[in-house]
Amino acid sequence: VKAAVVTIGDELLIGQVVNTNAAWIGAELTNLGIRVTLNMTIGDEREEILEALETVLSKTDVVILTGGLGPTHDDVTKACVADYFKAALIQDDAILAEVKSRFERRNMVMPPSNVGQALVPEGFEAILNSAGSAPALIRQEKGSLLAVLPGVPHEMKLFMTGTVLPRIQKMGGLDVRCQKTLLVTGIGESSLQQHLDGLGDMLDEHRTLAFLPNLQSLRLRMTTTGEGAEERLAELEGWIRARASKWIYAEGDTSLEEVVGHLLKQKGLTLAVAESCTGGFVSHTITNVPGSSDYMLGGVVSYSNEAKQEIIGVNSSTIQLHGAVSKETAMEMAEGVRRALGASIGISTTGIMGPGGGTPEKPVGTVWLGISTQEKTIAVLQKLGSERTRNKQRAVTAILNLLRRTILQLED
Amino acid sequence: VKAAVVTIGDELLIGQVVNTNAAWIGAELTNLGIRVTLNMTIGDEREEILEALETVLSKTDVVILTGGLGPTHDDVTKACVADYFKAALIQDDAILAEVKSRFERRNMVMPPSNVGQALVPEGFEAILNSAGSAPALIRQEKGSLLAVLPGVPHEMKLFMTGTVLPRIQKMGGLDVRCQKTLLVTGIGESSLQQHLDGLGDMLDEHRTLAFLPNLQSLRLRMTTTGEGAEERLAELEGWIRARASKWIYAEGDTSLEEVVGHLLKQKGLTLAVAESCTGGFVSHTITNVPGSSDYMLGGVVSYSNEAKQEIIGVNSSTIQLHGAVSKETAMEMAEGVRRALGASIGISTTGIMGPGGGTPEKPVGTVWLGISTQEKTIAVLQKLGSERTRNKQRAVTAILNLLRRTILQLED
Repeated sequence: VKAAVVTIGDELLIGQVVNTNAAWIGAELTNLGIRVTLNMTIGDEREEILEALETVLSKTDVVILTGGLGPTHDDVTKACVADYFKAALIQDDAILAEVKSRFERRNMVMPPSNVGQALVPEGFEAILNSAGSAPALIRQEKGSLLAVLPGVPHEMKLFMTGTVLPRIQKMGGLDVRCQKTLLVTGIGESSLQQHLDGLGDMLDEHRTLAFLPNLQSLRLRMTTTGEGAEERLAELEGWIRARASKWIYAEGDTSLEEVVGHLLKQKGLTLAVAESCTGGFVSHTITNVPGSSDYMLGGVVSYSNEAKQEIIGVNSSTIQLHGAVSKETAMEMAEGVRRALGASIGISTTGIMGPGGGTPEKPVGTVWLGISTQEKTIAVLQKLGSERTRNKQRAVTAILNLLRRTILQLED
Repeated sequence: VKAAVVTIGDELLIGQVVNTNAAWIGAELTNLGIRVTLNMTIGDEREEILEALETVLSKTDVVILTGGLGPTHDDVTKACVADYFKAALIQDDAILAEVKSRFERRNMVMPPSNVGQALVPEGFEAILNSAGSAPALIRQEKGSLLAVLPGVPHEMKLFMTGTVLPRIQKMGGLDVRCQKTLLVTGIGESSLQQHLDGLGDMLDEHRTLAFLPNLQSLRLRMTTTGEGAEERLAELEGWIRARASKWIYAEGDTSLEEVVGHLLKQKGLTLAVAESCTGGFVSHTITNVPGSSDYMLGGVVSYSNEAKQEIIGVNSSTIQLHGAVSKETAMEMAEGVRRALGASIGISTTGIMGPGGGTPEKPVGTVWLGISTQEKTIAVLQKLGSERTRNKQRAVTAILNLLRRTILQLED
């Protein structure tokens, strides 16, 4: 089964937006065992869209097309698709009612331009959009599927995971295929490679391993195909775990904050956070997990020294003697916030995220992470890079991993 | 002058790498006044590359093709390009000497596979690579240019800025072109359209307006071309501002948190944040701006009621009478955190982000935003959607906009 991804939007062509949709869709299709052979990006131009449809529909079985479905004047995708198939546009009353009620729920009157959202080309099925107003359009025939989706990434992803990918799987013609992803944190890609010495001998055409780094973790995606796929996947997983279990924190699609949240809930522990350099990002990440109010009591963003002293009771002499970015301050912050909120565990961050603020002794990227329980309070040093946004992300990942290891009472 | 960008590489199709090259090249070409009409991404496959060359060379004047120039077995771009033009591959001794000496400088012997790097298709010019081994290949005729560049981003960029973009400029035939982007927040795309009634009459082939929404704001990108482009851009901007100035918070590439940070700094004001439902995201966003420690004193994530009462002094009777998600609680939070940290302005969020926690009176998506200055303390209600992550983002945007409007003393 071959596939093409067509992304429509001038903002992509002129480079105002990087095409993350194409990458995400490509990864998901590949994941199902489909060979993605072509990506095309074109503007909101009738001729370009018609030509692109001609090209991709003649060459591939599965076509995912995104963008240009909104109600505004420059969104012409649907009309072009209808023209290409010489299909009439027919009003779908269920869609219209849903679009109207979306506006009503927010105490707004639906602007007339939104009526067009409910027009569906003949031969297409319209799927309601749970996160926006433009429905998805799907045309499915034996062995082929064309999905026309909104370009807004989270709406596109909901449609892909909820409808399109399951349908493609049901289409059949895909190889037997097993896949599992191990999530790793606390070690870099090349260091991990060294611990996996001999990996090459474990892999072949039908048993592959992809290293997929993102800001939070490194995902190791194992894929096996053909006869005995399941057994050979288990063998590879065992081989990797025997060498890297220390850094594997979960499997599949979960996040470090979900893993930590689950552990806190399971053990009946509560959490308080004192952050300086991460500026609220630790608390934000923890509270992204639904139900986090069960264990997250709260946090303090002690950006100024006064905030550190007055709200979480760090001694002014500690800051004077050792500096705001120090082991001692990190420890007092973690212990102070734990006591102030009456939590089982307190965690803290203090550091220099850049671009300014570095000194020869404490260069940009220096960060202390503190953790305090009723038994003990410690702090560990991390040396990060020079880029502020990435440093914040990496500090969050490191403190969450420290929290996870502390709850599990793992030794270093 | 029309252009196409062709990026070659399986890693792009399977989504292992996001195609930042296409975005960067698109932005640079647009900047010169060239209209980018097509991006294609294909694998390292002979047939696909030949077909793509046929498509783009027949439709556009400038073609930038990247990737597949390395010495490894799956890099077939150069052979395909030579075949397409029926051009012999001729060894370029200057290139060969340079590739050899690159290896010698690193005390290595050049692997034989690298001899191929010095082969140049007839009719192409080879440009030495100062950062890697593969030279760029350029075929230039009157009014057209094809550049074949390595896919490694920093090598590609060196070739583009050093050679390709200057040559394109010299080709001439580029339109006069003006562009400006207005940033809008606090209004949806379709409601804004209603306020811009009559917009269609302002636009034509040489004066266009694109609506580019992202999670934080709606960007209105105006483009004019041809004679009088500057005046006609100013006219369109004036027309839009006359109807939508209330929602325009900046121009160009800035963010709402940068605008707010700039205003706070300019007026010598300091800020304190009390957040419940946004869980640290407000503080995180504000502290993403370098230099934010000049005005950001700190924040409290009062996820539990106890944290609201003990750290920022919300009255327990207020929570009992009106609930944690209420106008009264939002106001006491904003005022409490302002006093606790001695800031000029305090802001607060309290709401129900979902998926759980809603009631008939206070459904998921209900959020109160508070703001307190020495003069007055107010709170406003927002009704958001049902998706937790998006709700957090939208609440952050709304409180930052409320803060901006308060500093500027704008009326509703």
